[in-house]
Formats: sequence, C-alpha cells, structure tokens
Amino acid sequence: LTQPVSFSTQQSGDLSGLLQILRDGHPRTRAQIAQITGQGRFTAGSRLNRLLESGLVTANGEAVSTGGRPPTTFAFDPAARIVVAIDLGATHARVAVTDLAARVMSEHLERIVIGDGPEAVLGVAATIAKLLVERSGHSLADLAGVGVGLPGPVDHTTGRPTKPPIMPGWDGADVAGRLSSMLGDAHVLVDNDVNLMALGEHAAEFPLVDHLMFVKVATGIGAGLISDGSLWRGAQGAAGDIGHIRVPGGKGVVCRCGNTGCLEAIASGRAIAADLAAAGLEVESSSDVVALVRAGNVRASRTVRSAGRDLGQVLAGCVNMLNPSVIVIGGMIAEAGEHLLAGIEEAVCARSLPLATQHLRIVTSRTMGRAGIVGASTMVVDYVLSEEGLPGLL
Amino acid sequence: LTQPVSFSTQQSGDLSGLLQILRDGHPRTRAQIAQITGQGRFTAGSRLNRLLESGLVTANGEAVSTGGRPPTTFAFDPAARIVVAIDLGATHARVAVTDLAARVMSEHLERIVIGDGPEAVLGVAATIAKLLVERSGHSLADLAGVGVGLPGPVDHTTGRPTKPPIMPGWDGADVAGRLSSMLGDAHVLVDNDVNLMALGEHAAEFPLVDHLMFVKVATGIGAGLISDGSLWRGAQGAAGDIGHIRVPGGKGVVCRCGNTGCLEAIASGRAIAADLAAAGLEVESSSDVVALVRAGNVRASRTVRSAGRDLGQVLAGCVNMLNPSVIVIGGMIAEAGEHLLAGIEEAVCARSLPLATQHLRIVTSRTMGRAGIVGASTMVVDYVLSEEGLPGLL
Repeated sequence: LTQPVSFSTQQSGDLSGLLQILRDGHPRTRAQIAQITGQGRFTAGSRLNRLLESGLVTANGEAVSTGGRPPTTFAFDPAARIVVAIDLGATHARVAVTDLAARVMSEHLERIVIGDGPEAVLGVAATIAKLLVERSGHSLADLAGVGVGLPGPVDHTTGRPTKPPIMPGWDGADVAGRLSSMLGDAHVLVDNDVNLMALGEHAAEFPLVDHLMFVKVATGIGAGLISDGSLWRGAQGAAGDIGHIRVPGGKGVVCRCGNTGCLEAIASGRAIAADLAAAGLEVESSSDVVALVRAGNVRASRTVRSAGRDLGQVLAGCVNMLNPSVIVIGGMIAEAGEHLLAGIEEAVCARSLPLATQHLRIVTSRTMGRAGIVGASTMVVDYVLSEEGLPGLL
Repeated sequence: LTQPVSFSTQQSGDLSGLLQILRDGHPRTRAQIAQITGQGRFTAGSRLNRLLESGLVTANGEAVSTGGRPPTTFAFDPAARIVVAIDLGATHARVAVTDLAARVMSEHLERIVIGDGPEAVLGVAATIAKLLVERSGHSLADLAGVGVGLPGPVDHTTGRPTKPPIMPGWDGADVAGRLSSMLGDAHVLVDNDVNLMALGEHAAEFPLVDHLMFVKVATGIGAGLISDGSLWRGAQGAAGDIGHIRVPGGKGVVCRCGNTGCLEAIASGRAIAADLAAAGLEVESSSDVVALVRAGNVRASRTVRSAGRDLGQVLAGCVNMLNPSVIVIGGMIAEAGEHLLAGIEEAVCARSLPLATQHLRIVTSRTMGRAGIVGASTMVVDYVLSEEGLPGLL
C-alpha cells in the first residue's frame, strides 16, 4: 500500500499536529488552517497537500466566500482507512471493523475457549477479521492497524501476555507477531481487556471527563484508569489490579491467589455464584446470577448488594487515593443493575471524603458490551495518528 | 520589569518548545538548534534571538569549529530569574529562593502557628521572602514566580484552601492574591504540601522514574502521586488523601473524621504518640516518637513497626491499583527509619502482586526535609517555562 518514506521527527510531528487539529471533522479553508497553525501559507499548504495525498484529509466542499471564487474546505476523513478490533475473553472472541473514528462498521461474536491457546484462538480471530474486512468492501491494504484486548496482564511494550492466570498456554506468546503475519503485516497493538474497556468507555461516552475509573465485575474483578484522557498503565503495566486488594472489614475467604480476604474472592461473579449455589440455588455462572436477580429472586439480589458493599469498601480507598470524576461499573454482574450500584454507593459515600464524592458519578457501563472493541480501536487510532505512528499511514 | 507583549499561542508554544530543548543546559550552536528543531535557520534564529533578549538563554562559549571562525554556542541560563518557594506546615514556615533549575540559593526556617490565620502567617512568609531575595543580590523584579505548599486540601485552579481541617481561618483564603500583592505582583501558584513533596522528591532524586508515590507520615498521613512526571491531582484536587482509607484488618479506632479504622487514626505520628503515652511513656509528638526509637526503646520501635504494617496494608492496595516504581516515605515518622520501612515492606510484599512488587523500591525521603521547597519551586519553573506561562517572562 504505502512506500517506505523516511520522515524526520519534526516533519512527522508537524503533520500529526495538523491532523490533530483537523480530527474534529470540522471543515476548514487553507487560510483558516494557516491561521490556526500560525504558519505561513506555503508551509501550511505543503503539509496539507501531504495529508491530501495520503487520503487522510479530503477536500469536501466550498466555504462561504468573502467574494470571488468560493474557497475549498478540508477535513479529516475517518473512512480513509479501517481498523480491526479484537476483544478476547475466557469464552468469547468479539471482532469488529471500525473506521478511524473508532465507529464500528461490522462486528461478529464467536464462542471460543481461551485455553485452546494462541495458535487456535488467534487463527479464529484472524479468519473472522479477514471476512469482516472483505464484507465491509475493503482489503487488508486499507488496514491502519489491529488492536487486541486479552483477559490477563499484558506487557504493553512487547504485546505479550505475562503469566496470565486464566490463559493457559499464552504466557509470553507473540500475539502481535502472529496476528500481523495473518493480517497483511499490519501494525498490531495489544493490551489488557479492562484497560481497553476504560479507554473505550471514555472515548465513546465520557470524552470530556479527565479522571475515569472503569471496573469490570465478571468472573474476576479488574479496573482500568484514565488520567487526562490516557491510560495509567503503571510501571509494569499491572495497574488496575484491584481484584486482590484486601477488603476492609471483609470476610476471611481464601482466594485462588493464596491470600485471604481478596475482593475477587468475596465479590466477583464466581464468588456470588458459589455463595448462591451453597444456599441451594441453581447457579453456575455470572449470567445465572444476573438472570436470578432479574427474575426477582430476593436472596440473589441481597447477595449482589452485599458484594456491591464489599466492592464499595475497596473503591472508597480508590476514590480517596485518585479522586476520579466518574466510576463506570461494567462486566456481566453490572447487568444486575441497581442492586450492585446501591451497595457500591452506600460504602463509597460512607467511607470517602465529601470533597471527593460530592461530584462523583458512579454509573453502569453504557457501551452495551462494546467498550473493549471501541477501546481496542481507539488505542490503534490514537497511535496511527500520533507523531510516532503517522509515518506508517503516509 | 517586562512590557506587556501579546503573543499568539503558536509563537509562545514555539519559544517554549525551543526552551524545553535548551533546558538541559547543553550548549548548542545556531546550526545545531536549527537542525534539532527542524526549522529553517531564519525561523530558528529569530526565536533564539527572542530568548537571548529575555536573558533566559545566553551565549556562553565557542564550539569546536569545522573551519573558519568558531561558532558561538547557546544554553538556557537558570540564573536568569529567581523563584520564591514557601512551605507552610502546622508549626513551620520554610522559605527559600531558588534559581530556574529549582536549586536552593538561600533558605530560612521559622516557627509559626498556622492557626494564626492567613494574614499573619503570609505576612511573615512574605517578609522572610523579601529579605532572602535581597540577600541573594536580587530584587523582586527578577522574580519569575512564587510557589506555596499548604498543609491541607487546595483548589489548585484558584489557589485557595478548601475546608482545611488543621488550618482554622484559612478556608477559601486568597493565598495567591495576598502573596502576590506583597511580592511585587508576582505570579503565585499554590498546592497541597504533600503534592509538592512528591513533585520535589521526583525532580531532585528520581527524575527518570515515571510512577512515584510520596507518602508523608507525620501528625497526619497523606500522599502525592506522580504519573509520567506530572502530579495526579484528581477531579477536585483531592487525590492522595490516603489518611482516611480504612485499614484492612486494622483496629476499630474512631478517627477525628468520625469514621472508624482510618489509617490516620491507627498509624500517624499522633496515633503512635498516643499509644506510647497510654503505655506510660513520656511522648507528646512525632519527634518524641523518633527520639525514643533512636534511643533504642523497644516498645517505641515495636509500635512504629506495627504502624508500618498498617500503612503497608493500605499501600498494598495502592500498589495493586497503581503499580508505581518507587514509594518514598517522608514526614517526621520516616526518620524513625528501618522499623517503619520494615513494617511497610512486610505488608506490601504479602499483599501485592509479584508483577507489581518485583521491581518496586520503597525508600525513605532523600531530600532532608526540602522536598516541599524543591517541589514548590519546580511547580513554578514548570509553569513559567511552559507555553502558557512563558509570555510572563518575555
């Protein structure tokens, strides 16, 4: 698709800077672009031409003229390239094709078993991705990049999972390399699924919020942190692992990590299901829990609310520590709705400082299970339009 | 001092960008500057001239020539302006004059009573500041700005304390306005003292560390967070308030905030002192505790170590959540040394994930009580050399 062209950092930075301005989709004339960037018409014009050649910016109409021939306007074209987004869970692979605004064009959900290992699972994901790309009327040559979320810790710099507890056979696997070779040597970025959910929920629903925390309550419990619009990954990319924080005042249950009193051992979908099963109810999974709550089962509702309070005890500490504006609760158990939220709010309000809670919103995810996909796409788009990634598109 | 000149954002950004490059102190020729910035000699040259006029950059020697007349080199001059840094505590005012590299040129420590209110305390601080400026051979006209740390929550955007528990009479006080009018209308920035300690410890001792957490253990307990070199302030500037996180497995002591089991009620200098006093020892303050530990009192050492374990229980959650590279323990109780650290490490290693602890360093502050001053100066320097603040220096 593209010839290898070498750019200086400065050139790439200037082009990326211009693109960031045009990315809002607002059409602008050459004169307006020169004015905003503070550059001479010649410099601004030659940068604009470079972006027009790449197709990332298109001439799309005529502006209101101050007299004479009406000037052409220019805007970023999100349809210039496509992105493949892959969200892998313990038992599902969600694959989508999006545009450069992270808007989902087509999507497919397939049941998989993550323990089948990287070769089998990534093979399935790549096959689905290729079909979706074709069906969207594109080819792999139009691919700006591939974003992948995995249900375990990922070394973001290498794209390899590091000792993921629920992904046997995946430790150190070259996820990026495998997918790239199956998808036309595309650039592949890999991250933890909850990090991407935080990124996706933020991009899709809370783009103006500076400090957001996304909490996934499913079989396990994890969190993703957005600070000033970017992910907080931590030193080893391990940030957000709240599942093994000890619940203050919580039950002394032994966790699969070997410690006692971990949040995940008390308030996860697995823990709630085990609790209800021990009480004689027919419950095996998080979705069974949600079904019982929705059917009005009082015992299930009460257990979910109690799990919410335990979650709230840990989140209260996070609120004191980080002072976020929004906490989004996602994952299967979030679909139990009000009972979980009520428990969380009760504990957070009792334990966090008024200054930190007075404007705090605690909400359930609004992305209908798509946060991971939108986040994977957003990660790729942010990269390919950046100073570092842009040369790959030009 | 300076005439009001209006700059476009772009101009200010370009000058600030050039300054950020030169800020490393490394001397460069005009040709090297043009090359690094990727700009034409004319553009780079006129920007350089603007910075030379301001005195922020000076010509300071001759480079090795490739033939002909040796070219002059240029570098950032931290001595071009001075900064006043003020660190206020419950019972002390530390005031310093620094250069634009946040290096302390002169410093004074005065005992004050914070409860005397803003008029009295800020009057004392301003008087000391003016004396130090004079004694350093400068005048207020050389002042780039003033940085202030306060022992309570501060709304960073307005520079006003918000309901500070240990600062009667300070709620909503216009700290910036008062100091500015006493110090030649200088630009004044105000923040919480622990935030500034984190900034100062990072700048002075760990400039290459991305994720650092500074924990002050004194009469109270608080923390400051550095993410990618910047402070994480949170939505209302309340981030880092770990003193009222409930200690998992901790004692049910009632805290002055009204809740039970808060970290501050169990592991602060006040709590440790009360514990030892109840056991019949003559202890009133954090410094008495430190003195007893240093004198080899076993009971005091054991109590400090136990407080370290309680602190570690809370920090373990912070480590799982944030995955920092370095935790710095400061404040008076940190001077009790090994006993506190040993307790913290014990609890953190038992409760945090191996991925997050394998490269984690937990150390006591290395800035000898100067972290707050260095941080206040760093906050000012970062601002005045930024795109937003630079016009004030030109």
